[in-house]
Formats: sequence, structure tokens, C-alpha cells
Amino acid sequence: MKRYEQVAEGVADSIRNGTLRPGDRLPSVRQHSAEQAISPATVFQAYYLLEARGLIEARPRSGYYVSRLPMLPRGGDEPGTAAPQPGSSEVEISELVFEVLASVRRGGVVPLGSAFPAVSLFPLDRLARSVARGMRRLDPQRIVADLSPGNDQLRRQIGLRYLLNGRAVEADEIVLTNGALEGLNLCLQAVTRPGDLVAVESPCFYGALQAIERLNLRAVEVATHPRTGVDLDSLAAVLAQHPVKACWFMTNFQNPLGCTLPDEHKRRLVALLAQHDVPLIEDDVYGELHHGQRRPPPAKAFDLDGRVMHCSSFSKCLAPGYRIGWVAAGRHARTIERIKLMSSLSAAVPSQEALADYLQQGGFDRHLRRLRQHLAQAQARALRLVQRHFPAGTRVTRPDGGNFLWLELPPAVDALALHRLALSQGIGLAPGALFSADRRFTHHLRLNIGHADAPGFDTALRQVGQLTAQVMEQAEAGPCGP
Amino acid sequence: MKRYEQVAEGVADSIRNGTLRPGDRLPSVRQHSAEQAISPATVFQAYYLLEARGLIEARPRSGYYVSRLPMLPRGGDEPGTAAPQPGSSEVEISELVFEVLASVRRGGVVPLGSAFPAVSLFPLDRLARSVARGMRRLDPQRIVADLSPGNDQLRRQIGLRYLLNGRAVEADEIVLTNGALEGLNLCLQAVTRPGDLVAVESPCFYGALQAIERLNLRAVEVATHPRTGVDLDSLAAVLAQHPVKACWFMTNFQNPLGCTLPDEHKRRLVALLAQHDVPLIEDDVYGELHHGQRRPPPAKAFDLDGRVMHCSSFSKCLAPGYRIGWVAAGRHARTIERIKLMSSLSAAVPSQEALADYLQQGGFDRHLRRLRQHLAQAQARALRLVQRHFPAGTRVTRPDGGNFLWLELPPAVDALALHRLALSQGIGLAPGALFSADRRFTHHLRLNIGHADAPGFDTALRQVGQLTAQVMEQAEAGPCGP
Repeated sequence: MKRYEQVAEGVADSIRNGTLRPGDRLPSVRQHSAEQAISPATVFQAYYLLEARGLIEARPRSGYYVSRLPMLPRGGDEPGTAAPQPGSSEVEISELVFEVLASVRRGGVVPLGSAFPAVSLFPLDRLARSVARGMRRLDPQRIVADLSPGNDQLRRQIGLRYLLNGRAVEADEIVLTNGALEGLNLCLQAVTRPGDLVAVESPCFYGALQAIERLNLRAVEVATHPRTGVDLDSLAAVLAQHPVKACWFMTNFQNPLGCTLPDEHKRRLVALLAQHDVPLIEDDVYGELHHGQRRPPPAKAFDLDGRVMHCSSFSKCLAPGYRIGWVAAGRHARTIERIKLMSSLSAAVPSQEALADYLQQGGFDRHLRRLRQHLAQAQARALRLVQRHFPAGTRVTRPDGGNFLWLELPPAVDALALHRLALSQGIGLAPGALFSADRRFTHHLRLNIGHADAPGFDTALRQVGQLTAQVMEQAEAGPCGP
Repeated sequence: MKRYEQVAEGVADSIRNGTLRPGDRLPSVRQHSAEQAISPATVFQAYYLLEARGLIEARPRSGYYVSRLPMLPRGGDEPGTAAPQPGSSEVEISELVFEVLASVRRGGVVPLGSAFPAVSLFPLDRLARSVARGMRRLDPQRIVADLSPGNDQLRRQIGLRYLLNGRAVEADEIVLTNGALEGLNLCLQAVTRPGDLVAVESPCFYGALQAIERLNLRAVEVATHPRTGVDLDSLAAVLAQHPVKACWFMTNFQNPLGCTLPDEHKRRLVALLAQHDVPLIEDDVYGELHHGQRRPPPAKAFDLDGRVMHCSSFSKCLAPGYRIGWVAAGRHARTIERIKLMSSLSAAVPSQEALADYLQQGGFDRHLRRLRQHLAQAQARALRLVQRHFPAGTRVTRPDGGNFLWLELPPAVDALALHRLALSQGIGLAPGALFSADRRFTHHLRLNIGHADAPGFDTALRQVGQLTAQVMEQAEAGPCGP
């Protein structure tokens, strides 16, 4: 980390922990420089970075102030933690998910409901060169050798990245998969039988609900805080009451909330699950998209006995469409490898070769820094637009990473109706109903801020704000209203 | 079809239907030429082709004779049809399958037990150029557009090939998958629930048994003839007695028998299943590898109401490792597309682009002709080696396509013991026990002839023959023998 990045991180920490509050004036560049014995240029660079990330704002002839949008919303602005239904439930949300997915893929729709950052943010040309080079020099025998668990070199490179994040993972426990989605599905199959109970967050990634539905399992939802993630006391209660066979949680920049379990919570989570001998399927596909300086570690980093199956991929941070994900599967590695062999044999060799070559060439971290900075700026812009154009009473998260905002709209707003209305005007949305088995999040939206540079993004967001107000007014006027 | 190919096919037909018998002398080139009013050069080319395919042999100064190895073994030389157990059974063969699969991937092992022809038989360089070109000119938006069901252009190309084989299939009912294996698994999930009964051939592809085991289904095995495939009377009896929810059959060059349902049987099969309203999961991954002139049609060609889900891929005929397969799913297309989206989102974009480009460039049929001719010659060579080196009482199939031979060894031979013995000497085999739920095929082997050009192939096959004799002698000498 460069010096100015360290300085910026120090200020960001003060904002995060409340030492600096929205509207507070920062020390002047000269003051800060003198106090901490660093050059004014370094302080200036740090402030510039913080401004770019939307954390502070410059006021002409006055200085720098903590942005009015706090780092993490507190109190009134922050969506609440929902109390899920106490029992378990069968899952039937696929129809709605497919409707939304299909709408996202329609040409000309502004993809505020999509799960992927804009493809223009990825180094597609360099990847194309890597796939060409990789296949040109491919030893034909590797086509057989690269069957599951997958290309040795790529698995070693992935193992090395774990080391960067605080915990070595041997290539031997890594199984390559067709994206993280397949990996997560394989994990679920590895540790459950039809009828078993799986704990998920509330709200949670709809893919988890679909997998549970498809494999004839049942879901129990656990209360989840929009900032600190799954509530461990609630989880302890659920584990005490129900024969839970697996937990499927997103520990970093969760989809849809954007929440991240603090390190200490991750440690406690792993200990709690060890106590109940329940495996954790850890979905960490957004972990590399942190807006701050540090990649939050996975819960896997606190796992000493191989109970955590850590799933991730390159789809959201480097190579969309290449369909390369993996599971660092701990004690379940051989089972996962076998289910992978049985269900789709192996990941595609051209994609494996491309990523092995790309990672070997270097440049991944440079790309990630650019991508993270872009997403942080996009988030700041989107938050300003939400603040400006959405009706009063709208609450919004402000995640430390990823490409989502989670909006709690005024209770009168039917987000499904809003989704259909927006779609008729060429805007795709992800309504809250997608994210729980009982469609509880009726007045919530997940917003993808990963397309903020696309023409029409600002207009679309303003338009959704206006439509929200319109839907709310109609609802409040009642069925006989104007 | 060229004139000399037509002439060759005419002679091959006469051998197939018994008009010409093993050892019969063919008309001389001059005679044949005069009789049918074709040039001697054409007849010579036809004879040369038949000789290359191992159907006839030249004897110096004497002329051409029908090869001593008949076109299809009859009577004494042909393996029998096994009568499966009447009931249904739970399946547990995965351990054994993984043991064999792992052995095949070990370096230095002669892969007589593998399912793939040698990678050297495929146009890997041209495919590498196609993947480079495809990714270089990729419109980034296609990364989203190529999600399931998959790249439009590639699906149209696949649809066109069905037209060549007698039945148009619209791109709209084709879903791209990660190889045929994933497609077959998706089909099974689309039409069954845990506990359901699925009919398979006896013997059958172990992947079907593994899928049934993994999805908590039960299997009922149907007697299968080593030349004409699944026995329709037996199937009718099974359907009358059991609540079968799906059939998973390989209709062309079945794995492991190499059998092919005659067209009329395919028609009757489709009608029988329509009568019982049972869907057919048709595994046709070897269909393009016919040794004769004509690709046998899939059962799908006789399906008028979309009950057949036809699964195939490019893995065995063009592009191993690219993991591109598909399902032409008829009335189940939307369900399959959705399960695909839920379980692994889409096939890899680089692989999709590569195959779309390759097929557009042309040359697929030229490659296929070469590959087929190679496999036909390899089969002839392997049959001669089996005849020469295996003990008396060995029976062997002679399929019209694909890359397998199925050997019924003398009953005293324990094929599992043989497999382990051969492996200790660096030779991989696929013992018969892999191919049924109750490990019934105890003295059977599947031999992959797709590596006949590799150094060591002849030696390995001779060695397996000798080991077979050795295992047999030991068994006959009894436990107290020498």
C-alpha cells in the first residue's frame, strides 16, 4: 500500500468508526501534513482519493468535509434487519427469478437489475490474447490432464491468492467449476439429501433459493443485518432448534444487502458451526470488489478443520463469460471433485488456459485496483442520485464493496409493481421478492451500480425514483383514488 | 457420396446381409467393372476403401476376399444378450468408476479403458485459431447475450446438422450445455423426482448409473442386444410392470456395446414411449463416428410430439476439452434452459465462439471423414489383434461406428482382477462391472480402439490377451492350483 493510500485509509477508518461524522470538516492539507510529518502532496493525494470514493467532498474556499452521505448509513437512513418467519419453508421463487433474468438480457434495457458489473470494466482484449496464446501452446495431453479438479497451474495461482488474504490453501483442495454457481450447487449436493434443511440469510442470493428448490431441500432463513451480515445469535437459535444440514452464506459484500461479517463475527461463525458440526458453504464472489484498501478475509481463513467450502470465481472481478469458478473445499474436496466429474466432467479447457496465462502474465491486481476505484465512485454517484430523486423515507445501504445498493422504499410501495412499470419503460430492476422464500421484501430493491458509466444510467435512476413516488402516491390514494 | 463410395457401400451391404460371407472371393476388378458399367479405377478405389475399413483383404496373385472377421459377428463369436434382474435397484457403482477414471488419467498408462479417441485425431490447431479469432472480434455484449440457451449462431449451425440427418430442429429448442454429460443430467432432473424409476440399457454407460445414484433415483435395466440395441419387447414388458418416469438410452454406437437401433426399431421405440407417455433421454454422442457412409438418424428423427430430448456434443467428434454439448429438448426446452441457468448459468463463451467460428469456416465434414476412416481402420486392426492374442472362447462385437469393442471373455475370467493386473503393468481397461448397477458383466471388457496409432497399442493389446489367458488358467486351476 502506498503512503497516500495509508493516509486515506486512516481517514476512512475515522469515518467508519464515527470519529469523523457527516458534515465534519477535515484538517486542512497543511495542518494534516504538519501533524503527521508527511508531505502536503501525499495528503493531497489521499484527500483526492477519498473524494473520488465519495467519502469526502471539497467546498470551494472552505476545505474538505465528510460527505453528507455517511460511509455506512446509521439510524434513520439504514434499512432495518427483517425478522424472518421462524419455521422452515419449501421454496418456489424460480418463476419470478426467470422473469427478471430474461428482462435483464433484453437488448436496450438499462440493467439496474443485473448482477454483473458492466463488461466494459473488464480486460477483455488482454483475456482474448491470453486465450489465443494458451491454446496455441497447449500440450494436447493436457486436455485429459485438465479434467476435474482442473489445470494444476491455475489452481496453484488461486491457492497463492488465498495466501495474500491471510490463509494458505493448497492447490490440492481446489476444484475448478463452471463459475461459482456450479461450485455452490456441487457443495450443496455434497452435504445434503432431499428433504434436508439449509440455513440461508434473509434476504439472500436467489441462486441459493433456486438450488434449494431444485434439489428438493428446505430453507430456514436467518436474520441478517444490512451492515454486519448474518446475525449470529439468531443463527445460534436456529441451529439449536432445527436439524440444519448446511449453511449457505455470503460473508463479504453480500448479495443483495452488501453487508460484510466483521472478522470477529467470521471467527465466531466458524466456531459456532464447528460446535454443531454443520458445514459452511461460503459464497465469496464479490470479495475482491472491496472499495477500501483491504480485502476482507473469507470465513475460510478462520477454519482450522476443513469444514468451510469456500466458493468464488473470476466472473465478477475479471473474466465474465469464461465460466471459471472454484471451490476450496477442505475436507469435502474429493467428494466435490467426484460430483463435478459426474455432472459436467470438467471446466472448459480454453477458459482454464486463458486464466492460467493471464494470471501468470501479471496485471490482475492493477486491473482490480482500477475496477474497485470505479465501483467506489459509481456507488457515490448512485447514492447521490438516490438521495436526490427517491421519495423521502427511502433507506439505502452503503456497502464497503461490491456493486449493489439495497433500497428499502416506503412501505406503501409495491416493488414488484414498480419493477413491471420500470420494465415497460426500458429499465430492469431486481425487486426484493427475489431474495427470500416467502417474498417478504415487498418494498425493497437491489440496484446494480456497476453500469454507472453507461449512457442513460443517471436518467434511468432518476426515472425509477419518480416511478417510486408515483407508485407510492397511487397506493396511498387507495384503490378508489384518482 | 462419390461413385466409388457408393460401390463400396453396395459391397458392404452384401457383406452385412450375408450375401457375401467371410472367406468369399469378390468379383475381380475387371469383372465388377464390366458387370456394373463403371470404370476399373472406380472399382479399385472402392475395394481399396473396403480394405482400409478391414472388410475385405487382398491375397497376392489371387484377388480380394471378404475378411475372415465378419462385418458383424454372428453365432459363436458374438457376445450374448444378458437377461437383467427383473426388479429395480438402487445404484452404487461410483467408487469403481472413479478408480477406473483415475487410472486412465495417470501418465504413461495405455488408455484402453478411456472413453475418448486420441486427442491427436482432432483439429486442435484449427480450433485454437477459431477461439483466437472468435474472442478477438467478440462483441462484449454477447457475453450477456450468450447466457443459456447459448450463442444463436452456434445453435443455428447445430440445427442445420439435424436437417442433414433427416429432421429439422429449430435453434429455439436447442440448449447449449457443458458437454453432453451436463445435458443428460439436466434432462434427468427435468423429468424426475427423487425415488423415481429410470430405464437404462444392460449394459449401459456408467454415467447414466452415476446420475441416477446422485439424484436419488432408481434404475431398471432393459435387455440390450449387442448389435441391435435395447430389446423392445423387454422394454414393453418393463413399461407395463413398472412406473418408469424416463428412459435413458444410447441409440447409436452405444457405450459400451457399440450397438445401434435399426431405423425401424427407433420408430417403434418412439411410438412405444408415446403410448406410455414416457420421455426419452437420447444419448447420441457417438452418432457422428459411423464407419459406413451414412450417419444413423437419432430416434429424435421419428419424434413428432417433442417427447425426445436428444443430447450430443462436440467432445468425441471435434473438440475434446471445449465442453460444448447440447440438448435438442423438444417440449422440455424451456425447463432445461432454466435448470441450466440455475445450475451453471451458461457454457463458456470462448468455447461457444470457437465452435461457432469453426463451423462457419467449413471443414467439419472433411475432418469427420478422416476421423471415421481412421476409427474404422483402427477397429479392423484391433479385431485382428483380439483374434490373434485372446484365448479361445472370447467373443467380440464389431460395431458399425464409434471407438469401442465389447469383449465377452471366457466365463472363468474375473475382469476386475484382470483390470487390476493390467493396470499394474501400465494398461488401463474398462471392466464390465462398470456398466450395470449389479456389476453383472463380470467377464467383460470395453476396449477403446481410438488410440490404435499410439506406440504401444499393439503390444498392450497382446499383453491384455496374454493376461486374460493367465487369469483364466489360474481360475481354472482353482484356489489350490499351482
